[in-house]
Amino acid sequence: MNDITDPQAALNHIPADIHCAQDYERLVREHIDPRALAYIDGGSGTETTLRSNLDAFAGFSLRPRLLRDLSAGHTRLRLLGRTLLHPVMLAPVAFHRLAHPEGELASANGAAATDACMVCSTLSSFRLEDVAERAGAEKWFQLYFQPRREHTLDLVRRAERAGFTALVVTLDASIQAPSIRARRAGFVMPPAIQPVNLAAYPAPAQVRLDRDQSIIFQGMMSEAPTWADLTWLLAHTTLPVVVKGVLHPADAIELRSKGVAGLVVSNHGGRSLDGVPASLPALPEIRRAVGEDYPLMLDSGIRSGTDIFKALALGADAVMVGRLQLHALAVAGALGVAHLIRTLREELEVCMALAGCATLDDIGPEMIQEQKGAHHTC
Amino acid sequence: MNDITDPQAALNHIPADIHCAQDYERLVREHIDPRALAYIDGGSGTETTLRSNLDAFAGFSLRPRLLRDLSAGHTRLRLLGRTLLHPVMLAPVAFHRLAHPEGELASANGAAATDACMVCSTLSSFRLEDVAERAGAEKWFQLYFQPRREHTLDLVRRAERAGFTALVVTLDASIQAPSIRARRAGFVMPPAIQPVNLAAYPAPAQVRLDRDQSIIFQGMMSEAPTWADLTWLLAHTTLPVVVKGVLHPADAIELRSKGVAGLVVSNHGGRSLDGVPASLPALPEIRRAVGEDYPLMLDSGIRSGTDIFKALALGADAVMVGRLQLHALAVAGALGVAHLIRTLREELEVCMALAGCATLDDIGPEMIQEQKGAHHTC
Amino acid sequence: MNDITDPQAALNHIPADIHCAQDYERLVREHIDPRALAYIDGGSGTETTLRSNLDAFAGFSLRPRLLRDLSAGHTRLRLLGRTLLHPVMLAPVAFHRLAHPEGELASANGAAATDACMVCSTLSSFRLEDVAERAGAEKWFQLYFQPRREHTLDLVRRAERAGFTALVVTLDASIQAPSIRARRAGFVMPPAIQPVNLAAYPAPAQVRLDRDQSIIFQGMMSEAPTWADLTWLLAHTTLPVVVKGVLHPADAIELRSKGVAGLVVSNHGGRSLDGVPASLPALPEIRRAVGEDYPLMLDSGIRSGTDIFKALALGADAVMVGRLQLHALAVAGALGVAHLIRTLREELEVCMALAGCATLDDIGPEMIQEQKGAHHTC
Amino acid sequence: MNDITDPQAALNHIPADIHCAQDYERLVREHIDPRALAYIDGGSGTETTLRSNLDAFAGFSLRPRLLRDLSAGHTRLRLLGRTLLHPVMLAPVAFHRLAHPEGELASANGAAATDACMVCSTLSSFRLEDVAERAGAEKWFQLYFQPRREHTLDLVRRAERAGFTALVVTLDASIQAPSIRARRAGFVMPPAIQPVNLAAYPAPAQVRLDRDQSIIFQGMMSEAPTWADLTWLLAHTTLPVVVKGVLHPADAIELRSKGVAGLVVSNHGGRSLDGVPASLPALPEIRRAVGEDYPLMLDSGIRSGTDIFKALALGADAVMVGRLQLHALAVAGALGVAHLIRTLREELEVCMALAGCATLDDIGPEMIQEQKGAHHTC
Repeated sequence: MNDITDPQAALNHIPADIHCAQDYERLVREHIDPRALAYIDGGSGTETTLRSNLDAFAGFSLRPRLLRDLSAGHTRLRLLGRTLLHPVMLAPVAFHRLAHPEGELASANGAAATDACMVCSTLSSFRLEDVAERAGAEKWFQLYFQPRREHTLDLVRRAERAGFTALVVTLDASIQAPSIRARRAGFVMPPAIQPVNLAAYPAPAQVRLDRDQSIIFQGMMSEAPTWADLTWLLAHTTLPVVVKGVLHPADAIELRSKGVAGLVVSNHGGRSLDGVPASLPALPEIRRAVGEDYPLMLDSGIRSGTDIFKALALGADAVMVGRLQLHALAVAGALGVAHLIRTLREELEVCMALAGCATLDDIGPEMIQEQKGAHHTC
Repeated sequence: MNDITDPQAALNHIPADIHCAQDYERLVREHIDPRALAYIDGGSGTETTLRSNLDAFAGFSLRPRLLRDLSAGHTRLRLLGRTLLHPVMLAPVAFHRLAHPEGELASANGAAATDACMVCSTLSSFRLEDVAERAGAEKWFQLYFQPRREHTLDLVRRAERAGFTALVVTLDASIQAPSIRARRAGFVMPPAIQPVNLAAYPAPAQVRLDRDQSIIFQGMMSEAPTWADLTWLLAHTTLPVVVKGVLHPADAIELRSKGVAGLVVSNHGGRSLDGVPASLPALPEIRRAVGEDYPLMLDSGIRSGTDIFKALALGADAVMVGRLQLHALAVAGALGVAHLIRTLREELEVCMALAGCATLDDIGPEMIQEQKGAHHTC
Repeated sequence: MNDITDPQAALNHIPADIHCAQDYERLVREHIDPRALAYIDGGSGTETTLRSNLDAFAGFSLRPRLLRDLSAGHTRLRLLGRTLLHPVMLAPVAFHRLAHPEGELASANGAAATDACMVCSTLSSFRLEDVAERAGAEKWFQLYFQPRREHTLDLVRRAERAGFTALVVTLDASIQAPSIRARRAGFVMPPAIQPVNLAAYPAPAQVRLDRDQSIIFQGMMSEAPTWADLTWLLAHTTLPVVVKGVLHPADAIELRSKGVAGLVVSNHGGRSLDGVPASLPALPEIRRAVGEDYPLMLDSGIRSGTDIFKALALGADAVMVGRLQLHALAVAGALGVAHLIRTLREELEVCMALAGCATLDDIGPEMIQEQKGAHHTC
Repeated sequence: MNDITDPQAALNHIPADIHCAQDYERLVREHIDPRALAYIDGGSGTETTLRSNLDAFAGFSLRPRLLRDLSAGHTRLRLLGRTLLHPVMLAPVAFHRLAHPEGELASANGAAATDACMVCSTLSSFRLEDVAERAGAEKWFQLYFQPRREHTLDLVRRAERAGFTALVVTLDASIQAPSIRARRAGFVMPPAIQPVNLAAYPAPAQVRLDRDQSIIFQGMMSEAPTWADLTWLLAHTTLPVVVKGVLHPADAIELRSKGVAGLVVSNHGGRSLDGVPASLPALPEIRRAVGEDYPLMLDSGIRSGTDIFKALALGADAVMVGRLQLHALAVAGALGVAHLIRTLREELEVCMALAGCATLDDIGPEMIQEQKGAHHTC
């Protein structure tokens, strides 16, 4: 088997047989090492949450209206005080180099070309400063708390200096390991791919555990962030802080009251705790909890413009696209990412047009309904 | 591969192994180019609505009654002031020549021979005047609004002159494109097949869009009909106007109040906005909204006489048959269409007889029930 | 292909690999012509009701109780004034000779050997008098109304003389035709197999229909029984009359008030009107309608002793076994039928013992519960 | 085919491709005779209960909370007055020698090495005294009532003397037979494997039944325990008595009032009465019936640490692992059992950590929710 990091057969054009955004999921298999794809696509545990994320969208159907005037329609929105031309964002995903030699740099180019907001991961395989340079005006930085606060603070300062306009703190992944699917496929992270942003922060000395101590609780979780850490962060940056990984309305309320600027309703794409429900059906309850105007994004499961429509109808302001982003990147680099975003936006616009919605504000809960008997996950 | 428009192997007799109306769906594969069949059968998007249309019927079961006297039973009904011998109508479908060289002429013959009302599409592949000549006494014309009102009006006048007794305005398909299934199959409309009714109406000059304008909203939807267009149409014809593509009770109420003569509850056979629910479960709510005596038809998903029974029980006065019509046409031309209609009518009569219903009026909501646990779509 | 009526390879012993009653359904394939099996097993239409009958039992689960004293347990019941040793009855099924050369005579022998009540069909392939001779003390005669009342009355008198202790009037099958499955398999009733009971009753002259008359309503249904016919029958026999084919509680109430002695809740094994629900979930509503002590039987879908337990818990006094009876007959003749009945009885006893029920009266509705999320059909 | 009791190919190390506890279910096929595996894995009847046990867990999803301090987390619990380090117990399973030549001795070693409580079966293939010697401090003895009370009492005395700290009386399996799966596979218990604990207790003379008596009721059930037997047992031992096989809250209340020390909610792993619901959804109702502090265990269907989390959230204090225990034993003997227990405990700890639960007490009903549309079984 060839080296995972070998230059992949990415195209420099869009393949002819892409008829919808989700086609990238099908085509990617010809453009990436199967071990890397297993790492990208796999979910934790038995992948029940991963499946739920997709099934959830089938659980809602659209309720179109007739004869409305849509000739002034658009997809603009306001988010964290800025105007976005459309609600399709690139979710933070680690190690884009697994999909394409130019990694996050290509993704950033694709986002910039299509006016999409990109969220750069702490675990990016190119330096956050270089990614920021390629990304357009809308770019956020995803932050993992580091074992030592000074390192976390250094990451924040670098993101601020690089021009990122918001921080996205991910809170649902204190324990991370490659999925069973990835391990069965024989995936090992290639040495050439490194979390380059963290190169300057030495790992802390390993804890020695007593026999009655747990490697989970007294080991890994001893460095996991708590409410006190979040409060500290909020006091140490002027950037708006968005929290990613929220599923419970009580957490949403508490985060809002602490000064968090917005939330990403997410289950980490089914990659963290297997067995949690899809993020889509969690939206309405969280929207009710935080009120009408509070920024909410959805991540996990978006595969089409119709999915975006449903997420917006259930309370999201924008959506983040994870796996599909890496699929498009692997198929055709920056061009693929740009084409993916444009396709999703067009699918959303067609859906809005046929449903009778001229603006995102028209996509209210009355535009969809639960699909009885469907296999979904609220 | 042969040319799609080659004369197909249509039979001049009914095949021996047709045991029910739906058998045409199975047999058609031997009588039509697979690319044309993909165009006819495909649905939009991921075909969720297409599947819902079929699943929906499984979601209701029958509640038969015993020992009633059915010896005077019949299937007659009154619709738009006329008497029909049975409630099986031919839905408007574009380009019948894809299925059979004689296209809509053969379908019209089949309808006339079995006392069925045919709805001729604006996009018929033979001229509406020629179709009208072959059709029986009951014939309606399906109207798509044209970019210029004078062209729309010309179509209306031609339909009036040709003897059509009603107009069916389709409102749920402002954006049309071949399905992914058709595109994957390599379908391209053969040059020989044209929307001949529109030959005299030149296409309007293409709009030039600014960079921040949308090809959907400022392009395609700028010509889509609005409430003002419908009001204009109602003022310019003496024919009853039926609206096709209604799923929402609020639209139904508004359409009725504007003077529309009847509605076709339909999702365009799953060919327009993918993700809308089946049309069947939308019936009861719309029936309640428009009242007991207002004409309602159902389209999308009819495959058997039992399906017709269920649609009538949920509030329809009659049903329209789309894909199955083209299947029968492809298998055996006019004879196939006539046999299909007769078979559906007989299946309906057997269902009525075994359920204890002597007339269509006896088929009320008490004759069916929701099937718990079934995979359906209300 | 050999003649359907060739002596089949029925065994004269019970095969070693039968571990439960339902195994006869699997083994029968080696002992019968596939065309005959298609006729026996097929259901009407698309077989949705046939499937529902089986799914329905999966929709209920058992609620066992612990530590009860069962050492005096038994399966006796009183039905129509007589004592049966167990509630397993042989449903009326036409033409047993399709399954075995000795047909109903062998079935009657099997029933007699296991104290089971057999219901002999009007359409038996041996004369009702000969069947009665082989059957045990418990035997009922199933009656189809004949086009002429004198013929119906003659059947009744013959059944009375032959010693049948009850009449079972089937009312849910006014129109009968081989199933699509049977027709696809090429089934034709062999000339050697005849409804011998009706040999002396010439068919009435065929009705001439006008063009606007229906072969269903003015043809077949003109001879179907009505309430007046049932009233006439009740006045002309001293035998208790049971009605088979009841699914609606309003019909049940009316039948009881007319003097009918008991009901068989049944959908004709999914062989009559396709699309009706399973008979099992219809039981509770009908039991409530007719009161606690009125005789109710269930037919359609019984495959195991646990199924019998569930039917009894939902309100049945006894159950009838149709297809499985012919399967056992085809596999091993009278011996097979006897073994089937004994196996079903033992499976019921094991179920009762493990559930903590010493008698049939202990099997109340509190012994089962609906299984949420199951695919069933109430 | 080789002899079932041949030394199997058990490993003396943990295979590399075990990524989760359930992997033992997959790997076991290479380490055991298929006939023995059919006996171990099969369920009674058509295995509906067996499937329900697994489906039930999919019917609930987790509701994680964010940012809690988990650095002092642990899995300790108090049960029957003793402290257990974790809630993973080895369920009583008959004849471990079918899985491994060292049978229960190896299992006991594995349990001792991982601080797990083992429940030794009456039907163990090594003497209870020898098993007790290998097991750790936490060991219970599972008791089947014997036909004669003196034999039952002898078993109790031996268990007391051997140091078992509780008795587990199984009440849901008065009738036992190898499953259909096992019989189809040709399983026969090898003569070398015997219920050695019962060697000194001669079987009672077989009962002679009259023709109208039942082999079930007057045969097998004449020796089944009743409430009187349980009362007698409680009066004759000082050990706490736990009852296994409870599904009904009314039985739970009665058992508690009689002085039973705790319950195992169980359907015997789907091996006794087929058709009963999964044990998981029975938990909440039973927990409500017996109150907050009464010891409840769950058995049947545990395959992962997340399953344990769900059982605890629904009211269990601890869980018992049956089939998976024998799978691990077959794969790698004592080492496999130890690894299985450690893996389950770690999976539980990861689940707790990611869900925000520091202790078992934090795993309340608010930590999970029913998964709508899932195929489960409450």
